[in-house]
Amino acid sequence: MKKSVEIGLLGAGVVGCGTYDVLTRKAEQIAEQVGVPVRVRRVLVRDLNKERETNIPAELLTTRAEDILEDPAIDVVVEVMGGEEPARTLMMAAIENGKHVVTANKEVIAKFGFELMRMADERGVDLFFEASVGGGIPIIRVLRRDLLANDITAIQAIINGTTNYILTEMERGQDYLDALRHAQRLGYAEADPRNDVQGVDAAYKLAILASLAFRAHVRPSDIRHAGIEDLQAKDFRYAHEMGYVIKLIAMARRVEEEIEVAVHPMMIPNGHHLASVKGVFNAVLIDGDQIDQMMLYGRGAGAQPTASAVLADLGAVARNIVHGNPERLGVPRNGRRVRQFEEMEARFYIRLQVADKPGVLARIAQVLGDESISIASVIQKETDETARVAELVIMTHAATEKRVAEALQIIRTLPITRAVNTFIRVAR
Amino acid sequence: MKKSVEIGLLGAGVVGCGTYDVLTRKAEQIAEQVGVPVRVRRVLVRDLNKERETNIPAELLTTRAEDILEDPAIDVVVEVMGGEEPARTLMMAAIENGKHVVTANKEVIAKFGFELMRMADERGVDLFFEASVGGGIPIIRVLRRDLLANDITAIQAIINGTTNYILTEMERGQDYLDALRHAQRLGYAEADPRNDVQGVDAAYKLAILASLAFRAHVRPSDIRHAGIEDLQAKDFRYAHEMGYVIKLIAMARRVEEEIEVAVHPMMIPNGHHLASVKGVFNAVLIDGDQIDQMMLYGRGAGAQPTASAVLADLGAVARNIVHGNPERLGVPRNGRRVRQFEEMEARFYIRLQVADKPGVLARIAQVLGDESISIASVIQKETDETARVAELVIMTHAATEKRVAEALQIIRTLPITRAVNTFIRVAR
Repeated sequence: MKKSVEIGLLGAGVVGCGTYDVLTRKAEQIAEQVGVPVRVRRVLVRDLNKERETNIPAELLTTRAEDILEDPAIDVVVEVMGGEEPARTLMMAAIENGKHVVTANKEVIAKFGFELMRMADERGVDLFFEASVGGGIPIIRVLRRDLLANDITAIQAIINGTTNYILTEMERGQDYLDALRHAQRLGYAEADPRNDVQGVDAAYKLAILASLAFRAHVRPSDIRHAGIEDLQAKDFRYAHEMGYVIKLIAMARRVEEEIEVAVHPMMIPNGHHLASVKGVFNAVLIDGDQIDQMMLYGRGAGAQPTASAVLADLGAVARNIVHGNPERLGVPRNGRRVRQFEEMEARFYIRLQVADKPGVLARIAQVLGDESISIASVIQKETDETARVAELVIMTHAATEKRVAEALQIIRTLPITRAVNTFIRVAR
Repeated sequence: MKKSVEIGLLGAGVVGCGTYDVLTRKAEQIAEQVGVPVRVRRVLVRDLNKERETNIPAELLTTRAEDILEDPAIDVVVEVMGGEEPARTLMMAAIENGKHVVTANKEVIAKFGFELMRMADERGVDLFFEASVGGGIPIIRVLRRDLLANDITAIQAIINGTTNYILTEMERGQDYLDALRHAQRLGYAEADPRNDVQGVDAAYKLAILASLAFRAHVRPSDIRHAGIEDLQAKDFRYAHEMGYVIKLIAMARRVEEEIEVAVHPMMIPNGHHLASVKGVFNAVLIDGDQIDQMMLYGRGAGAQPTASAVLADLGAVARNIVHGNPERLGVPRNGRRVRQFEEMEARFYIRLQVADKPGVLARIAQVLGDESISIASVIQKETDETARVAELVIMTHAATEKRVAEALQIIRTLPITRAVNTFIRVAR
């Protein structure tokens, strides 16, 4: 029986330092729960001399990956460097060398999780990635294990804290750029915020959740994603008047034997569980045949919540090591296909500027009707008499993405159209 | 290596039949995830001839516990009969005979969980009880395992669906008895509803949650519980006016090295996460040093959600059996004491009827002041001029239970007091 569990840490950024900090500060509590001490043996960094706010002893630092990957005393490699490379290559090498892997890397798991899980399964090691989605919320383990008896039918999630912070600020009346700058000042958004605000980060996370929930192979490239950059203060005001808030929603749904997945801003009715998720918080709503509906809510990012998830994985790995067995949770393997985005159906909110003259509404309605899109309501919101422009807000009944895209394409080219400002899907 | 995992089911009520149903209907999916088939070998019932809506084959039924406890082919005993005896004795016998135990029994786990966990630990078998609290919500595993790196500081929970259903109806204007009858008609409340409406059920569940969260030994008898029977429609109206809803809250909190626990109705501010938990749904809000705040929400009762939790446990036990090792999660063992209820602090809402004449308010205020209870607001709500009675609603600042109880005792005996109608603790 092992006397301790030895860790090689890849990366000493915010999450790496946070993990080291908790592991040392709570060493006794963790040892008690795991059965043996869990210790960091080596830490891979790019630059030995970089200033770090951490108590990691200098002698643990190394710039040579092989000091970790080829050290037979190291049981677990904890990858917290982020980004695709070299993280992917290092994790693969670790698994090949028979080391268990714990990672917080959504990008690598979203793109190569399937391959990595298969490798881990063959090599008989654990591959855990709780911290890759939802920070401190234990969503991965709940999907991989606790809902085993359920056929999951839908997931709706707020899984990007940066955008949810910005949208919460916009709900309060700020415009997009002010809210973004505010988020950047608080450290919630990066200097280059595109990965977050364009929905890329949420799509990575959704690929992971959907793959586990539906036991299928959903790739990030399967997921159409739209961001929040084009949303305007006005849309939030109109949403509010109609009893909605606007959220960036990652959704996955089983429709017959296919899977629908998408990330985009949605109008969420005020009573909906996701409507009250504010600021940087995350929430995942799961529909399953046995549980009906369940929600997990918490902090989706930050050093401490992420370290909490890394530590949960480490605790599980360490227990498995002590007892001599990896937790073979298996590779998602069913063959469900991802449905073409164009075939997905949604209700739409469309805001557009048109010439303020008779017959205009009839013409717009005709285009929509020609595409079999039925209109639930039209409201003329504002009129600029000098410019002779009227603003219309149209709510449609459910229609396919393809039909709506085609209709908007035609509407854009009409001589009476000044601009199609926004279109936002509407949740039930 | 085991070729299958064999189950002895104790009880064929709603949860037992639900569990059998899922196990057979989803046999393939479960076998795939666990690694081997999971099969029910024997089912203990009280009466072989009772009519049951189930597809359990008659030849599996037995009235002799030893057919399960002494069958060496049975690996896991699943206890879903409920109540203290004979459930407790049967579980103990199962553990002694080296069988893993999965149970949905909150009463036995709340009262004897400590003892049972120690027995299981010594005997090297698993004892899982996910279904004992929160139905399909995986709260037990989250506390036992996923929050390992956290020092949990508080739990606030709605963990009794019956009372939450009744309170939700009362919020809509029904009075207590109508709401109770409504709940009984829908099968949400039992013919004798005392266990639920008096807070006993919630106290059992809180004892389990608090023991795990604080790694301490919290007994049901440590938990002061008050029910919802005395709440009146008027209190819901006043709560609404002040921006609150009334919920039956199970709360546990670490205060220095002690633990505070209680179950009672509380005024919850509208923006609070627990305020929007409606009907029979449950929610558990957890504060921890790493995660900050997390919430789990879902169906807290019913055959299907409960079976989902039993199956999650069964999946874990079966995997452990296949890999030859029980999951030693350990027995909570730290020595934290439960603080005397009288020393706990809360803000209070107090509604009382007093004589409608000058000096009355001063007299009441004086009694509160004498007990060092400071008043946040007093509103005179209604006056019955004929009866010369005025109704006062007092909100206090934080005060100890002891002081408030003493003050109310004195106020009740004042000649100017007609009645102390209600006092409800107020959440922050």
